[in-house]
Amino acid sequence: MNDTQRIRGVLSPVVTPFKADLSTDPERFVRQCRWLLSQNVGLAVFGTNSEANSLSVDEKIELLDRLVAAGLDPGRMMPGTGHCALPDSVRLTAHAVKLGCGGVLMLPPFYYKPVSDDGLFRSFAEVIERVGESRLRVYVYHIPPVSQVPITTGLVERLLKAYPAQTAGMKDSGGDWKNTQAFLDAFAGAGFDVFAGSETFLLQNMRAGGAGCISATANVHPGPIARLFDTWQAADAEAQQARLDEIRGTFAKFPMIPALKAAIAHHGGDASWATVRPPLVDLTPEQARALVTELDQRKFTMPGLRR
Amino acid sequence: MNDTQRIRGVLSPVVTPFKADLSTDPERFVRQCRWLLSQNVGLAVFGTNSEANSLSVDEKIELLDRLVAAGLDPGRMMPGTGHCALPDSVRLTAHAVKLGCGGVLMLPPFYYKPVSDDGLFRSFAEVIERVGESRLRVYVYHIPPVSQVPITTGLVERLLKAYPAQTAGMKDSGGDWKNTQAFLDAFAGAGFDVFAGSETFLLQNMRAGGAGCISATANVHPGPIARLFDTWQAADAEAQQARLDEIRGTFAKFPMIPALKAAIAHHGGDASWATVRPPLVDLTPEQARALVTELDQRKFTMPGLRR
Repeated sequence: MNDTQRIRGVLSPVVTPFKADLSTDPERFVRQCRWLLSQNVGLAVFGTNSEANSLSVDEKIELLDRLVAAGLDPGRMMPGTGHCALPDSVRLTAHAVKLGCGGVLMLPPFYYKPVSDDGLFRSFAEVIERVGESRLRVYVYHIPPVSQVPITTGLVERLLKAYPAQTAGMKDSGGDWKNTQAFLDAFAGAGFDVFAGSETFLLQNMRAGGAGCISATANVHPGPIARLFDTWQAADAEAQQARLDEIRGTFAKFPMIPALKAAIAHHGGDASWATVRPPLVDLTPEQARALVTELDQRKFTMPGLRR
Repeated sequence: MNDTQRIRGVLSPVVTPFKADLSTDPERFVRQCRWLLSQNVGLAVFGTNSEANSLSVDEKIELLDRLVAAGLDPGRMMPGTGHCALPDSVRLTAHAVKLGCGGVLMLPPFYYKPVSDDGLFRSFAEVIERVGESRLRVYVYHIPPVSQVPITTGLVERLLKAYPAQTAGMKDSGGDWKNTQAFLDAFAGAGFDVFAGSETFLLQNMRAGGAGCISATANVHPGPIARLFDTWQAADAEAQQARLDEIRGTFAKFPMIPALKAAIAHHGGDASWATVRPPLVDLTPEQARALVTELDQRKFTMPGLRR
């Protein structure tokens, strides 16, 4: 369990650009991912904030292929590959491993509920067995407010026992630090990497032995979040955390995904970024103005984004 | 809105058979669907109880093609075609219309929550527009305990106004009669067909102007449920309803999908039917025995199922 190449640090669930006809926009996607890497942030593409569950498997495969074809390092990629349907999860996971992705972030199947840990163990086990690759690194994704299907310590214990090489870690987006702490206490010593679900818990997570964070707002505030990861033992760490919280607090006043896209559209000077797929809706012009105004007041910038 | 061919009556969300390797079993699926039609029950294939959300779009297309190729009447089919991802919903809906299916039962996108009626309207509208077929008949699917994304009367009002030909009706699986009544009061007069989500509400629904029911237990108790639909004005209707409730009550003591499959395996003399896909788990042998024993005590049979 001591891979030298393990993913650590700050990752962004990269927002997915759409054209006016709602089709995916690979060119803008590649450009955005390249910018994020330049800010020292890894690529948790196809996360919740990527509208990944509004994309077909074919669309995700095309976007991932385009990133790799453009020369971006797959070792920095942790695509979301968990779907409701077992064949979909197997197909995208196998493809990600074939491309050399550093890991995959795997939602449990999220339609049927409640489901037992037996059923969830079998879901993850079937994917791992069918992909059949020793270099697969699975990060299980705990996001009960959205998926409604929680990941328990009992489930992770079974996965670690059955698949010690492949069970690499988790993202905890539950928003409850006590839960994150419980996973750290139970498994961090065994080389299981716990990523906080937002930078809100980044400093706390690093102090407790975590591996970093995977955060929506890393789409828009990547450099400063990555800097806290790099310097969490520095004297100004608390001040850095306070600044991160301030910016996140502004975004949190709006529906998160359209707000991230509105900020990229504004600061990148590229209005087409604002488009979301249904069932989400774009910010209203009033909301977008209020967001930009408050960000300006807080002296928020996105250096290097505008071409 | 007065199609002569509108689907009415009792439909089964047909359980999907799997082989030992968890792949779909088209041959058993065709056989089961043919038996259901022989019992006067229509085919709401790819419903919740079909484990539809554990199937890929390709698997669903293959199964639907096999039914039509086997000569089963597509006019009796109302496949579930609503997915989280817009391209998936468009693809399967277009295929169903091309095959001549009498309607489609459409879940809202169910990952993101909460979502607005604006976003849901846009989701359904995009599917209807992209499919672009005047003969498409959409039945919206309200199942908040599972999807967590409810269908409101406000949403249906907008859909009926924008797409009067395509907005054909709904299935209400919320389990709350007052909600079903609200939809009947608002829209039944406009030719919007309300199907109850189980036979528990069948008699009540028919008396209030509904179109029938789409029920899990129509997989195992099809003939008697269809008979109540045909004779709901008969003197023995209440007695029929009581018998249906008795049998459903037995199944409801167990996890529904594995229990349906266990009953088919037992009464059809075909053990392989018991297999479910993860995240579901098969009944334990003890549960299966308890189910069969109680059904025997209640003189439950599945005439014509065993070959």
